[in-house]
Amino acid sequence: MNRRGRFITLEGGEGVGKSTNLDWICAWLDERGIEVVRTREPGGTPRAESIRQLLLDPAPQEPLDDDAELLLIFAARAQHLAQVIRPALARGAWVVCDRFTDATFAYQGGGRGVDMRRIATLENLVQQGLTPDLTLLLDMPVEAAQSRVDQRLGQQGGQRDRFERERLVFFQSVRDTYLARAAAEPSRMVIIDAARPLATVQDELAENLTRQVALWR
Amino acid sequence: MNRRGRFITLEGGEGVGKSTNLDWICAWLDERGIEVVRTREPGGTPRAESIRQLLLDPAPQEPLDDDAELLLIFAARAQHLAQVIRPALARGAWVVCDRFTDATFAYQGGGRGVDMRRIATLENLVQQGLTPDLTLLLDMPVEAAQSRVDQRLGQQGGQRDRFERERLVFFQSVRDTYLARAAAEPSRMVIIDAARPLATVQDELAENLTRQVALWR
Repeated sequence: MNRRGRFITLEGGEGVGKSTNLDWICAWLDERGIEVVRTREPGGTPRAESIRQLLLDPAPQEPLDDDAELLLIFAARAQHLAQVIRPALARGAWVVCDRFTDATFAYQGGGRGVDMRRIATLENLVQQGLTPDLTLLLDMPVEAAQSRVDQRLGQQGGQRDRFERERLVFFQSVRDTYLARAAAEPSRMVIIDAARPLATVQDELAENLTRQVALWR
Repeated sequence: MNRRGRFITLEGGEGVGKSTNLDWICAWLDERGIEVVRTREPGGTPRAESIRQLLLDPAPQEPLDDDAELLLIFAARAQHLAQVIRPALARGAWVVCDRFTDATFAYQGGGRGVDMRRIATLENLVQQGLTPDLTLLLDMPVEAAQSRVDQRLGQQGGQRDRFERERLVFFQSVRDTYLARAAAEPSRMVIIDAARPLATVQDELAENLTRQVALWR
């Protein structure tokens, strides 16, 4: 495979500061003259964003089947890989992605209780060995993260979407699954304690990015 | 599994007379006091029909990746099974479905060249052993079927959708795959020569349905 760029994913539950730190990571790489493709899942291409809309549609009259949800997520991922991620990596760009397959294991597997082996089957089918070079897991206790979400929604008066309405116990399973995956793959996944001051968090992000740049150059 | 109804699928390329014969089959069952659920794939539920729209969207600026297409088809199928097919069979209704997984093997596998083993992996994941009791394959030479399609489009002045624009060689592979599957599973799949007069075709449909009723009662 003609792969030259680096593939970095940012993971974590709601309210851990993913957006702020994504901005910061992309700026950090850009300042070092690295071509950055910032993207997100589910989504990242017009067709994949259309699939995302189907996933977020609350449609209370027709519950979304767990398997259908899982297959839609991987359909969006296949499209995203083909149209954005693989071409970017092939030309040497760095892809910085807001969530990837770890989120599927955490949300659908840990949160919703979908058999992890079913997720792994689809991971193998769709990714065919392509996994992130580095996954930064922003982690903090669920209660703290949830009060940040509540505060944000209160300020913006926004509605919670289908995923965000899920309960605290769901988010606890999501967090537990993320932490278990990080423990199982310590060379790829780095746990970043996101409850600390932002400057401290970003020092640790910089440290990890510096290591990737050294491996890449 | 609490399954009591019968699951019948109608398969075949474009122009073989599926709609006419679907109407006829449903009326035949209805006349015999059997509850019939007539449905289609991809689709059959509001959410699955939304997925169908994504599949049919020509969106020439962004080609739909083969894997993404395959996963969208099976996402729609999972939703359809959960919301319509399994509940109908469980209450004793007969499900008559316009296309099912044989079409995925024929169109995506035979037509588009997707590895049949990838399709079989998804079939196992989503269906978990549920397959049609009877599949009626309406078959005729590709050229004859295509001139029926051309005539219909000419009369209605309709536009061909993404699938219908595919070439003749594609439809030849679709037909070959359907026939190979029927040869491999003769107890489930019946090849109906659809080039014959409609009354003759329907006599043969009736014969097959009568056998299903006998097995069911």
